[in-house]
Amino acid sequence: MDRQALQERLLRIVGPDGIIDDPDELLVYEYDASDEVFAGHHRPDITVLPRTADQVQEIVKLANEFGVPVTPRGAGTGLAGAALAVRGGILVVMTRMNRVLEINERDGYAIVEPGVINLELSQLTQPRGYFFAPDPSSQRACTIGGNVANNSGGPHCLKYGVTSNHILGLEVVLPNGERIWTGGPAPESPGIDLTGVLVGSEGTLGIVTKVMVRLTRLPEAVNVLLAAFADLESASQATSAIIASGILPAALEMMDHLTIKAVEAAFHAGYPEDAGAVLLIELDGLAEIVAESADRVVELCRGCGATEVRVARTPRERELLWLGRKSAFGAMGRLAPNYYLVDTTVPRTKLPPTMRTVEELSREYRLRIANVFHAGDGNLHPLVLFDRFVPGEIERVLRCTTDILQYCVDVGGTLSGEHGIGLEKRDYMTLIFTTEDLCAMAGLKRSFDPRELFNPDKVFPSGFSCGEVNAIRQQAMAKRLGIEFV
Amino acid sequence: MDRQALQERLLRIVGPDGIIDDPDELLVYEYDASDEVFAGHHRPDITVLPRTADQVQEIVKLANEFGVPVTPRGAGTGLAGAALAVRGGILVVMTRMNRVLEINERDGYAIVEPGVINLELSQLTQPRGYFFAPDPSSQRACTIGGNVANNSGGPHCLKYGVTSNHILGLEVVLPNGERIWTGGPAPESPGIDLTGVLVGSEGTLGIVTKVMVRLTRLPEAVNVLLAAFADLESASQATSAIIASGILPAALEMMDHLTIKAVEAAFHAGYPEDAGAVLLIELDGLAEIVAESADRVVELCRGCGATEVRVARTPRERELLWLGRKSAFGAMGRLAPNYYLVDTTVPRTKLPPTMRTVEELSREYRLRIANVFHAGDGNLHPLVLFDRFVPGEIERVLRCTTDILQYCVDVGGTLSGEHGIGLEKRDYMTLIFTTEDLCAMAGLKRSFDPRELFNPDKVFPSGFSCGEVNAIRQQAMAKRLGIEFV
Repeated sequence: MDRQALQERLLRIVGPDGIIDDPDELLVYEYDASDEVFAGHHRPDITVLPRTADQVQEIVKLANEFGVPVTPRGAGTGLAGAALAVRGGILVVMTRMNRVLEINERDGYAIVEPGVINLELSQLTQPRGYFFAPDPSSQRACTIGGNVANNSGGPHCLKYGVTSNHILGLEVVLPNGERIWTGGPAPESPGIDLTGVLVGSEGTLGIVTKVMVRLTRLPEAVNVLLAAFADLESASQATSAIIASGILPAALEMMDHLTIKAVEAAFHAGYPEDAGAVLLIELDGLAEIVAESADRVVELCRGCGATEVRVARTPRERELLWLGRKSAFGAMGRLAPNYYLVDTTVPRTKLPPTMRTVEELSREYRLRIANVFHAGDGNLHPLVLFDRFVPGEIERVLRCTTDILQYCVDVGGTLSGEHGIGLEKRDYMTLIFTTEDLCAMAGLKRSFDPRELFNPDKVFPSGFSCGEVNAIRQQAMAKRLGIEFV
Repeated sequence: MDRQALQERLLRIVGPDGIIDDPDELLVYEYDASDEVFAGHHRPDITVLPRTADQVQEIVKLANEFGVPVTPRGAGTGLAGAALAVRGGILVVMTRMNRVLEINERDGYAIVEPGVINLELSQLTQPRGYFFAPDPSSQRACTIGGNVANNSGGPHCLKYGVTSNHILGLEVVLPNGERIWTGGPAPESPGIDLTGVLVGSEGTLGIVTKVMVRLTRLPEAVNVLLAAFADLESASQATSAIIASGILPAALEMMDHLTIKAVEAAFHAGYPEDAGAVLLIELDGLAEIVAESADRVVELCRGCGATEVRVARTPRERELLWLGRKSAFGAMGRLAPNYYLVDTTVPRTKLPPTMRTVEELSREYRLRIANVFHAGDGNLHPLVLFDRFVPGEIERVLRCTTDILQYCVDVGGTLSGEHGIGLEKRDYMTLIFTTEDLCAMAGLKRSFDPRELFNPDKVFPSGFSCGEVNAIRQQAMAKRLGIEFV
């Protein structure tokens, strides 16, 4: 690659303030929010910060011309290393494309650029009675484009569904440099569902340059309850009991003893420090129903042995109850120098045995594990605490988390609840997908990106080149069935 | 093609009662529910009715070996001609794979074979408190597999969303004969979303052999209201007013004067015959809320000039109110020998001008048009009435419906609300998709089906061969950007 020539051409596209190629400045872009211990650090050759879709299109055409990898990136809050330029090349940072282009209340959508911050969109639409439902914990920093790439979740996904349920259409620059719109405001789009393919594809199929999002009406009333239990088991039972009663909370979050203690020490959210587990339950909807449901939830929690149930009486109390949950990851610094966050999902009914298994593995590997997670939809987040400078500890963490993932998959769960696969979990993909599954995905990937320039070494297991797999597969078919491929 | 040899090999797979090759018996399979006047009739070389996924897999392998087209088919209730074997070959009828394999209430899903009838699944799960939400008008006959292929809608999609919102995973035989599972019970599946690609792909990417569907909890209470208006305009205003009030009905259906008259003559559903339009509004949820919302809907309808509002007091009254709507298409025979059903969607706010345009086009082309449709989500169903034996009438119908589609697209709508593209609308695809859009879809299609054996001549515009397009596109890229393709 003629780095100098590439740099000059990129400069002409984005201007001097849109390009970062100084080695010191590039340091920042070697990392995202994934743990360096596991994801490593990877310096892009050049970072560009385009301001328009036209610029993105020109950048992609140039990458094709030079044959260099392209890695799209939002705010870099991803936890699976999907935004790391593992093979160098051009890192395309989308944060300057942050305009809200249209808010259409009557038809319930907005068109935004991918660099718009998740929370800012909701703050902007709130006075008009709407919000953007997906709310990852990083919502103060993460971008809508990143939410699309990772099909992000968040506490409110229990009731409102993950990001894919809230994306109506996308403008996207494809790996060949073409720019298309997929989807639209109608509930169904004819032809092959390209919007569906692109959401969650982690930057491997293109760069999103505009997003048409569904806006959700703000509920009339919101209430938050905190229920304390002696142990995770009874809190899990209460979770099941609430869902089984027909009440669908907006959020149903669980925290274990270790998390409660860390949160209290760091933020004084007022959680009961002696509890073995707490549930944070948010109800929303019509005022009357929320009040009724709250009474019923209190009853159900007591029936499952809750030692204490608090109902927030003011918005301030609500915020305080949420504060602990939202700051839980940050509070972990009190407990250990490092933590590794496992993101996995099990069927809700499998929560109690899964929590027991996590506890057993914690003992077996002599690693403390804090649990803070979306109990309502079975999305676990065990935080495995460690110190990277203690010899052998990293290896134990890896073995322990592999065992957790394997167990979750064995009971019918999956590899990721909301953080994606990226670099971090690519080698676990074979736990849940057969070679045939991966080949079908690889074929699709190749149809978008035949030269495999877009976010290489992500999602697919290492050693699994889409091109090779495609060729091998076609040869096998040709041999078996006497087929000629055009 | 050695038809004799193919037949013998198929016979070995499905047995003598699983194959239909007698020309007289094949007649039945020349048609689906689309209008023969527009879709024509197309005889498959052989029809097979497999009983297992293994058999489907063997059939597909055989089709590859012989290089013959494969057209999957459910109950044949589709209105866009997607289940017609346009190029002959093997028609794979899935109706005998009709077992419900698992109902899991606690985790809220069922696993069914694709030939299960839509309504039967809901009837089966109802005693346990669940139903399958998508409810196309053909739900007494259509199959879940057909719903998946067409991403079917129905009256209740307003509240519950189209089929894609209710499919958790699929077992599918790919065009290369491999069998894979996509998705699963978790709300999000890692990697590329193959479930999303397959739902709505109209049999062009594979044959679904098992479906994991989301089950929805039955609401505590249901109520149905009928509101009569002087004209479509005021009924449209009431529709907007109801949605704007924050009430989300389970269904919000509109019928115009012509439809009301036909329905009354045929079925005596008790609709007010002098009304210019009626709205059928179903509310569901908690009993108290349904009652409150019903009062509010009555008020809103009166505010928009409703001449009469009826509230069903018993389940029998509810059924009667629905009867007219559900039988509307059948009642059209009273008005004309033929009708052409246009399925299109506009933003809800564009309903009043769209209805006026339909009326104008009706006058301009001297064709009576009945309107019966899902007003709540802007999904129009103008029924253009005609007599195929009146010279020039068919041509006028085609010009009129093209104008309707063009108008809907111009105001921000789309080609199909729920019936799919199939054969019928393939040539309209260029109204909403650019060559680049179609190329991206074609590339994806080719990655699944490189030999284009699966449901050929569907969805993509005529003269648009996925293979050619792909080749042309790669040549253009090679030329422009100096790219080599492996």
